[in-house]
Amino acid sequence: MASAVKGNAVVGQSGGPTSVINQSLVGVIEEVKKHGHIEKLLGARHGVRGIVANDYIDLKSVPADLLERIAMTPSSALGSTRDKPDAEYCKKIMLNFKQNNVRYFFYIGGNDSADAARIVQELAAADGHELHVFHIPKTIDNDLRVHDHTPGFGSAAKFVASAIMGDNYDNASLPGIKVDIIMGRHAGFLTAASVLARKYPTDGPHLIYVPEAPLTEEKFLADVDRVYSKQGRCLIAMSEGVGTPDGKTWAEKMADNLEKDSHGNIQLSGTGALGDFFASLVTKKLNNPGGKKLRVRADTFGYLQRSFAGYVSEVDAKEAREVGRQAVRYSADPKHMELSVVMKRVSNSPYKIELEHTSIKNVAKDTKHLSAEYIKDGNDITQAFIDYAKPLVGELPVVDSFLEMRK
Amino acid sequence: MASAVKGNAVVGQSGGPTSVINQSLVGVIEEVKKHGHIEKLLGARHGVRGIVANDYIDLKSVPADLLERIAMTPSSALGSTRDKPDAEYCKKIMLNFKQNNVRYFFYIGGNDSADAARIVQELAAADGHELHVFHIPKTIDNDLRVHDHTPGFGSAAKFVASAIMGDNYDNASLPGIKVDIIMGRHAGFLTAASVLARKYPTDGPHLIYVPEAPLTEEKFLADVDRVYSKQGRCLIAMSEGVGTPDGKTWAEKMADNLEKDSHGNIQLSGTGALGDFFASLVTKKLNNPGGKKLRVRADTFGYLQRSFAGYVSEVDAKEAREVGRQAVRYSADPKHMELSVVMKRVSNSPYKIELEHTSIKNVAKDTKHLSAEYIKDGNDITQAFIDYAKPLVGELPVVDSFLEMRK
Repeated sequence: MASAVKGNAVVGQSGGPTSVINQSLVGVIEEVKKHGHIEKLLGARHGVRGIVANDYIDLKSVPADLLERIAMTPSSALGSTRDKPDAEYCKKIMLNFKQNNVRYFFYIGGNDSADAARIVQELAAADGHELHVFHIPKTIDNDLRVHDHTPGFGSAAKFVASAIMGDNYDNASLPGIKVDIIMGRHAGFLTAASVLARKYPTDGPHLIYVPEAPLTEEKFLADVDRVYSKQGRCLIAMSEGVGTPDGKTWAEKMADNLEKDSHGNIQLSGTGALGDFFASLVTKKLNNPGGKKLRVRADTFGYLQRSFAGYVSEVDAKEAREVGRQAVRYSADPKHMELSVVMKRVSNSPYKIELEHTSIKNVAKDTKHLSAEYIKDGNDITQAFIDYAKPLVGELPVVDSFLEMRK
Repeated sequence: MASAVKGNAVVGQSGGPTSVINQSLVGVIEEVKKHGHIEKLLGARHGVRGIVANDYIDLKSVPADLLERIAMTPSSALGSTRDKPDAEYCKKIMLNFKQNNVRYFFYIGGNDSADAARIVQELAAADGHELHVFHIPKTIDNDLRVHDHTPGFGSAAKFVASAIMGDNYDNASLPGIKVDIIMGRHAGFLTAASVLARKYPTDGPHLIYVPEAPLTEEKFLADVDRVYSKQGRCLIAMSEGVGTPDGKTWAEKMADNLEKDSHGNIQLSGTGALGDFFASLVTKKLNNPGGKKLRVRADTFGYLQRSFAGYVSEVDAKEAREVGRQAVRYSADPKHMELSVVMKRVSNSPYKIELEHTSIKNVAKDTKHLSAEYIKDGNDITQAFIDYAKPLVGELPVVDSFLEMRK
C-alpha cells in the first residue's frame, strides 16, 4: 500500500463518559508508538474545546504504568465536552490542525461527535490540508447504527444487572414496590439489561419499561397491581426516557404538571424526580389487597451507571482497548480519509467479534433503537435480548437464595 | 466448664439488609454443625415475624455449596422485618420458643433487634424456660456503641468510596456542581467514608456534610461558591440525615416547605428529593463567577449502598462470617445468658481485631455518633477518620489521571 503522510495526531474524548472510554484512549496511545507515520500525539483537553484553545497534553511522554492506571479509571481522562461545533467552530478546529500539522484526528465519542469530526475533515480537504479522521465509538446507550454494540455499554449493563440483582434480594427481604430508574433517554438497551439479573422465575425485575414501548398510567398501575397481588412484592426497572402514548416522555409530562401545580416554586432539575413520581402514583392510586400500607420506594441509579470505579465488564474493557488500537492501524493506510471503527459479531456461541469500518455518515445523526423482537407485552424483555447482551456483560456475581429449600 | 443445655436454636435476620449479613448467617450454620448442644437449627423467615408465625427453614439440611452462594448474596436470605416487638409480641416469641424447645436464639440485627431478643430472654427466664440469646451485629450505619465497627459497614463504605471516586472523575471530565446523597439518618460514618475516594489534593469530594454537623443554607452556598470559584467544579458528599441548626433534618424542613408550596399535590415519599432540593438551591442562589449557566446535578445512592451484588470489602465479609461463628462458640458455654458479639481493634497497623462480648444492654437504645475529632470545619473529614476506616474497606479500585502531566 501507499505510505501514510507523516505528521501529528490529535486524540480527544467527547460526550458522556463511560467506564472504559480510557481503555480506548490508551489503546490509541500504545498503538501510535508502534507506527512511524504519527510524530507527536496530542491529547486535546475537553475534546473540541481543547482544540480551539490549543490546550494539549503530549501523550507519547506518559509513562506506561500511569497509562495502565488511567485505562482502569472511569470517565474521560482528557476531559470531555458537550459542545456541538457549528460551521464556525469546525473551521477553528481545522485551522488549529493546519497550524499544528495535524494529519490524524482520533475522536472517541458518540455519533454527534463523529459527525463534527467528519465535517472538519471536509473543511480541511477544501483547504488543501490532508486530514484523516477516525471515530472510536463509545456510549453506554448502545444506540449507534451499524455497530453490533458500543464500548461502554457492557460495563454499564453489568452495573445495572448487578444493582438490580442486589435490589431483587433487598426487595424480597423487605417486600414492597420498588421503582429503579435507569439511564437511556431514547434507547432502552441499558434498561433492558436489567433482565440479566433474573435467576429464578420469581426474581425481579418483574416489570421492565423502555422508551420504545409507550406506557399509560393505567397500564403501569394494572401491571404493578397484578405482580404485587401474586408475589407480594414488585421490582420495576424503568428507563428515564419512558414515554407516553402521545409521544412525550413521562419526564416532560411530569415537568409540565409540576410547574402548574407548584406555581413555579419547584424546579425539576434533579434526577430523582421521575422515580419519585411513579412511586407516588402507586401510593396514591393502588389499593393494597391485604389492606396494609404499601411500602413503596424509588431509586435513580444516576451517574454511577457510567462512572462507578472498579467494576467493569472484562469483555467491554478489552474491546474498548482494541477498538482504539484498530483506529490507529487503519490510519496507517492512506486510503482511509474518514471512518468509524465497527465491531461486528461473527459468532454468538462462542462469542466472537471482528473489527470493521464504515463511513461516519452511516452512524451520524439517527440512532438505533431496541428492536421489537426484544420487547414483550410492553413490560418485559425477551430471551433474544438476553442472548444478545449476555456475552457483552460477561460474568455476573454469584448469588442464591433459600427458595429451593422452601418448596 | 459446665455443659450447655441441649435443645434447638433459632436464627433470624432483622432490619435493613447489608451486603454481608448472609456471611454471618452462614457462619452460624457452619459452626452449629461442629457443636453437640444444638439439635435443630431453625431459620426464622422475616425475623420475629416468622417466629410468631412458626415459619422456619431447617438450616442444617442446606447443602454446603448453596450456603457458600448464599454467603456471597447481598441482603437477608431468611427475609427481614421492620417489626419492633412490644411486650405482647415478645411473649408470643417466648411461647413459640418454649413450644419448639428453643434454647438458643441468634439474632443478626441492629440494636433495637438485640434489645427485643434480650427482653424475650427475660420473659423466658421468668417462665422457667432456659433461653440463651446472642446478638450478632450488622448495620451499614456503623452506629452501635461498644463495637469498634459493625459488619456491613466496610462493604457499604467501599461502595460509597468507589462511587465517589468514579464520580470525581466524571465531575472533572464534565465540570459542574454535583450533590451525592449518602445513607445515614443519624450517624455520618458512611458519608464520611466518601473521603477515602481522594487521591490528589484537588480530588473530590470537596465538601462532606454529616448529620453530626448542622448545616445552614448560608454555609452550604458559601462553601460551594468558594470551591467552585477555585476549582471550576465541586463534588459534594451529603448525608441524608444532614440537619439544620434548629435540630430538624433538612429532609423534614424541606418536606414542610414543599407541602405548603404545592397545596398538597406533591408527595415527598421518594428518595431523590433531598439531593434535588440542594441542587436547586445552588441553581437558584449561586451566581456563576464566569457568567455561564451552572451545571448542577444530584444523585441519591439509595439502596445500592447496602445491596449492590458482587462488590464487598473482603475484610468485612470475613469478619461478618467470623462474628456469626463466634456467637455459636459462646453459646457452648452455659454461663452466657445474653450477649452481643463485639469486634475490638487491638492494632491498627497491621490491622487486627479480637472478638469479645458485652451485655446487650450496653448496645441497645442509644447509638454511636461520629466523634468530633473526625469532623473538620463542618464540611470535611479528618485524617483520623481515614486511619480508622481504611482497614475496614480494604483495597479500593486503582485509578489515576493526567494531573501530574499537566503541571
